[in-house]
Amino acid sequence: MTYELYYWSGIQGRGEYVRLALEAAGAPYRDVAREDGDRVLSAFGKGIETPSFAPPFLKDGAVVVGQVAAILLYLGDRLELAPKDERLRLWTHQIQLTIADFVVEGHDVHHPIGAGQYYEDQKPEALRRAEEFRNERVPKFLDWFETILERNPAGPDHLVGDRLTYADLSLFQVMSGLSYAFPRLMERLYGDYPKIAAVSAAVAKHPPIAAYLKSDRRLAPNEEDIFRHYPELDP
Amino acid sequence: MTYELYYWSGIQGRGEYVRLALEAAGAPYRDVAREDGDRVLSAFGKGIETPSFAPPFLKDGAVVVGQVAAILLYLGDRLELAPKDERLRLWTHQIQLTIADFVVEGHDVHHPIGAGQYYEDQKPEALRRAEEFRNERVPKFLDWFETILERNPAGPDHLVGDRLTYADLSLFQVMSGLSYAFPRLMERLYGDYPKIAAVSAAVAKHPPIAAYLKSDRRLAPNEEDIFRHYPELDP
Repeated sequence: MTYELYYWSGIQGRGEYVRLALEAAGAPYRDVAREDGDRVLSAFGKGIETPSFAPPFLKDGAVVVGQVAAILLYLGDRLELAPKDERLRLWTHQIQLTIADFVVEGHDVHHPIGAGQYYEDQKPEALRRAEEFRNERVPKFLDWFETILERNPAGPDHLVGDRLTYADLSLFQVMSGLSYAFPRLMERLYGDYPKIAAVSAAVAKHPPIAAYLKSDRRLAPNEEDIFRHYPELDP
Repeated sequence: MTYELYYWSGIQGRGEYVRLALEAAGAPYRDVAREDGDRVLSAFGKGIETPSFAPPFLKDGAVVVGQVAAILLYLGDRLELAPKDERLRLWTHQIQLTIADFVVEGHDVHHPIGAGQYYEDQKPEALRRAEEFRNERVPKFLDWFETILERNPAGPDHLVGDRLTYADLSLFQVMSGLSYAFPRLMERLYGDYPKIAAVSAAVAKHPPIAAYLKSDRRLAPNEEDIFRHYPELDP
């Protein structure tokens, strides 16, 4: 069965967390809007019983699931990217939900007044919000990831248990986004988080992910995406 | 087994979505910080394998779960507040995740520059963000809830299937928060969403919830909470 991923064709965005899971597992999938255009995204929801509030959503036969964390919960079992044990399966999901919160903050740093207005029209506000994001929020989230890696009873090579889960993939993606958007901040912080750095590097070297990152399926980061590089926000 | 809920003692906040589930099911629980003080919240995470990034978290014997949506996923099965069918169980979760996104926006409307600074220090920014929230975001979310109620094949009395789920409880809570924070907006909008209004009213009348709302366990909304009433944001 070929999975169908529906997400904006021009950005990594939230779709990327799903793409990484599909790619890591070598699962067959169609990236529908990249083939058929973004208009399929709004057309799809019309009339179905379980329309998603926003992309991404995944179609697997008769099942349609939206919200990244819910999609990964669904795929985690099927692609063997989540533990079988219920407690650890839920813990993996909890980590993903915390990553989702971090991603919202990563977006709102350049759009504090609202997604409906241009960055240029909310730049002074973005400068203020970026200060708190750099000084308080990024360290708080990274401290937490480093701590849970330290405390993993199976060792610090993975966020959960002793093998790759979608949480590791998502941590890689967040670190990749932060490094693009805030290169100066991340350069200063990176040495403080050796376990996060090691997991991120291992994900990048995981053969199917390494092949994906070199392919043209991996979109380049850009200033339409969630993590954006505005030098003034990263002094 | 008595569940232990860990959440700030002075606000409904995100803990309330969990409280409503426990109360609706008549489950035995301790609201730990309300009994022992808020310092238990930070003390609890020290040294455990699965510390939550932030409250609320729920302890059920050896299981500790954080993130509202993950807690409700866990409780939904146990308290019979979620469908057994996997597709509908995931759909319930997807709705909860969308409610969680709405709640973040409901908070950020009064703290667009960051949670680390007082409202008074970001009031002009809040005025701008509130305009988009009122005019674009609230109608977009409410349109979506009304639509999925309309499309529920089991009828519009519940978000999912033909019985109460945690998603209905959470929708009630969001509507309660919006009505407190934006009474003028909600007065103007309320007639446009008869199905949401009916579900919210039915939740409020559900006997265990009706009893809870009258009890002193239900905290009053206030300006430390996520939904806050600042009249200037609701002209």
